[in-house]
Amino acid sequence: MQPIDYADASPEVRAVYDDIMASRGVTDVNNFWKYLANDPKGLRRTWTSVKEIMAPGALDPLVKEMLYVAVSASNGCDYCIASHTAAARKAGMSDAMLGELLAVVGMANETNRLAQGYRIPVDAQFGGPKD
Amino acid sequence: MQPIDYADASPEVRAVYDDIMASRGVTDVNNFWKYLANDPKGLRRTWTSVKEIMAPGALDPLVKEMLYVAVSASNGCDYCIASHTAAARKAGMSDAMLGELLAVVGMANETNRLAQGYRIPVDAQFGGPKD
Amino acid sequence: MQPIDYADASPEVRAVYDDIMASRGVTDVNNFWKYLANDPKGLRRTWTSVKEIMAPGALDPLVKEMLYVAVSASNGCDYCIASHTAAARKAGMSDAMLGELLAVVGMANETNRLAQGYRIPVDAQFGGPKD
Amino acid sequence: MQPIDYADASPEVRAVYDDIMASRGVTDVNNFWKYLANDPKGLRRTWTSVKEIMAPGALDPLVKEMLYVAVSASNGCDYCIASHTAAARKAGMSDAMLGELLAVVGMANETNRLAQGYRIPVDAQFGGPKD
Amino acid sequence: MQPIDYADASPEVRAVYDDIMASRGVTDVNNFWKYLANDPKGLRRTWTSVKEIMAPGALDPLVKEMLYVAVSASNGCDYCIASHTAAARKAGMSDAMLGELLAVVGMANETNRLAQGYRIPVDAQFGGPKD
Amino acid sequence: MQPIDYADASPEVRAVYDDIMASRGVTDVNNFWKYLANDPKGLRRTWTSVKEIMAPGALDPLVKEMLYVAVSASNGCDYCIASHTAAARKAGMSDAMLGELLAVVGMANETNRLAQGYRIPVDAQFGGPKD
Repeated sequence: MQPIDYADASPEVRAVYDDIMASRGVTDVNNFWKYLANDPKGLRRTWTSVKEIMAPGALDPLVKEMLYVAVSASNGCDYCIASHTAAARKAGMSDAMLGELLAVVGMANETNRLAQGYRIPVDAQFGGPKD
Repeated sequence: MQPIDYADASPEVRAVYDDIMASRGVTDVNNFWKYLANDPKGLRRTWTSVKEIMAPGALDPLVKEMLYVAVSASNGCDYCIASHTAAARKAGMSDAMLGELLAVVGMANETNRLAQGYRIPVDAQFGGPKD
Repeated sequence: MQPIDYADASPEVRAVYDDIMASRGVTDVNNFWKYLANDPKGLRRTWTSVKEIMAPGALDPLVKEMLYVAVSASNGCDYCIASHTAAARKAGMSDAMLGELLAVVGMANETNRLAQGYRIPVDAQFGGPKD
Repeated sequence: MQPIDYADASPEVRAVYDDIMASRGVTDVNNFWKYLANDPKGLRRTWTSVKEIMAPGALDPLVKEMLYVAVSASNGCDYCIASHTAAARKAGMSDAMLGELLAVVGMANETNRLAQGYRIPVDAQFGGPKD
Repeated sequence: MQPIDYADASPEVRAVYDDIMASRGVTDVNNFWKYLANDPKGLRRTWTSVKEIMAPGALDPLVKEMLYVAVSASNGCDYCIASHTAAARKAGMSDAMLGELLAVVGMANETNRLAQGYRIPVDAQFGGPKD
Repeated sequence: MQPIDYADASPEVRAVYDDIMASRGVTDVNNFWKYLANDPKGLRRTWTSVKEIMAPGALDPLVKEMLYVAVSASNGCDYCIASHTAAARKAGMSDAMLGELLAVVGMANETNRLAQGYRIPVDAQFGGPKD
């Protein structure tokens, strides 16, 4: 599919683009939204969910963006790593913070496989079966 | 393989167990370490790395534990989700924080696949090729 | 490894290429087969399996191609997304169908991680343990 | 976290449960929703998205449920495989259809790794670079 | 689906079971084959492929079984880890070999995510673009 | 982040680079280490672990490199596939060995999903529950 620019977008799509640009203080939307616009209902639904999930709450937006980077690095999604690393930097992530984040992501992926490969049963204190 | 309890452990393994218990203020190590003790060099190396990575730094320990939970939930590692959710709660994570964390993890996994399925090129401002 | 073109292929490899071209009504095989030809037994075995699996059966070929795209998008395999999206379009998939397919793939990846992160037990009616 | 039963749920959560039960013609919601109810906004958002995505559209509901099973099997999410296999059967999936579906999922996972391991470039006709 | 025991199997399925038992020198087939027998063509096709792939060749059977365990541990497939660890032990894998295997699997999963998270370009000597 | 060349590196980073070059008999380090050098402690820790894990032990270095390739192909990490395929070739892997390795990786990914999709219980002889 091809990306849909603002000039070529339907009123329904433009309304979403306008809200993204206003919420983020940018003058154009990035490629993710332009491709998703091929499915206008999906565009609206995804933006509504992202906006609600990434808003300040029990976790602050920087922590949320770092969680997003962690999952994207773990999945190996190039586009997602690139765009959310940029978003996290904008929200205050330093080089040292990114280095530590990736160190945790790497270690978690290592120990996840050790836990699975050794077939380790969940301890009783973590909710596993009592002996 | 079978887990190795403190009573049955070699001095090399006991030294690692002692350090884990002292660092964490617990009176026994959890199953992960007891299984890993079948590979004593791997036990020492993994504990040394985990201890260094999870220490306070540019990111605080709670954020690091939440990143660990996020990766483990994304990988579907039951043991890792159980043990690191417990560790994150001990470090201060509330139910509301866990709910928001999992919402971000879910959304990141959704949009990762949308980005890949639509074959979206990285925008120039995120390091992608200029037109 | 390097791709093996028809002109440079052994009779064993050419026989597989001929069958792929005849089955699909094309005049050349795509890169997947040209690389796999470095392992002639693997080439033959993989083509035989793909041909049998993707043939009409209880599911029609279009549904099978869409399932292939869904798995490939979920795995983030660029080559596989590109080639099977093309195959699915040839079998009748419209832009609207692809948009809905990717919406399901994204949502499934989201809820998979929520189910795992919340450590949700399988309900009795779905085959889980009775209380 | 613990599941939240209807009797213990807030009015906000009950409203979502009521809509799920009415939409599906069931007398109780399954565990997924009872755990998600710990995050009431996430419960509402996820249900709204699932309801919209799984509704009839360019793809019929059976195909959508089968795509959901395919992704869940590929991710190894026990809960999701169990619940969506049940939903797909209810929508008309036979044993033979499930067998073929899993055959495609298995083959797609095999060839995805072959494509990645051989480092196969995308063919020009699938959108790859022209020579 | 339910597993299909030898006593209840069709002649087509029994022929495959007989070949598995003869090839492996066992008196019953394990659950994997009994479930797959719900799709008789898939049972035959999968056994034919496994038999051909796992036979001695440029790699010896022990190395092949260890590769199988490595992938299964990386995917977190409980059944596959259990059955292929047993097969690898039967082929000669010691506890020390398994410990080192899992150490490599863990480390590979760690450095894979570091490579992806840092967005590291492929070096020219490994086939990446020349400056 | 940007790669850090030897000329621009701190003494701490240079010490690691020197050890990598001496251990491997090369005159420069590859990009993985140059990017990781943005996190000097992570660089040192990762190199120390890789050096220890990949050393000869119960498994010889060629088998270890092949396990590394198998996991990287399964994860779809382009950088890792490229660099560890090169390392495995240097350690003696032929084209035929790589072909068989990838055939096992593909088959393992296929049967992993069949095992999960069919929800196959672990046999008693592999450590599963007795009837």
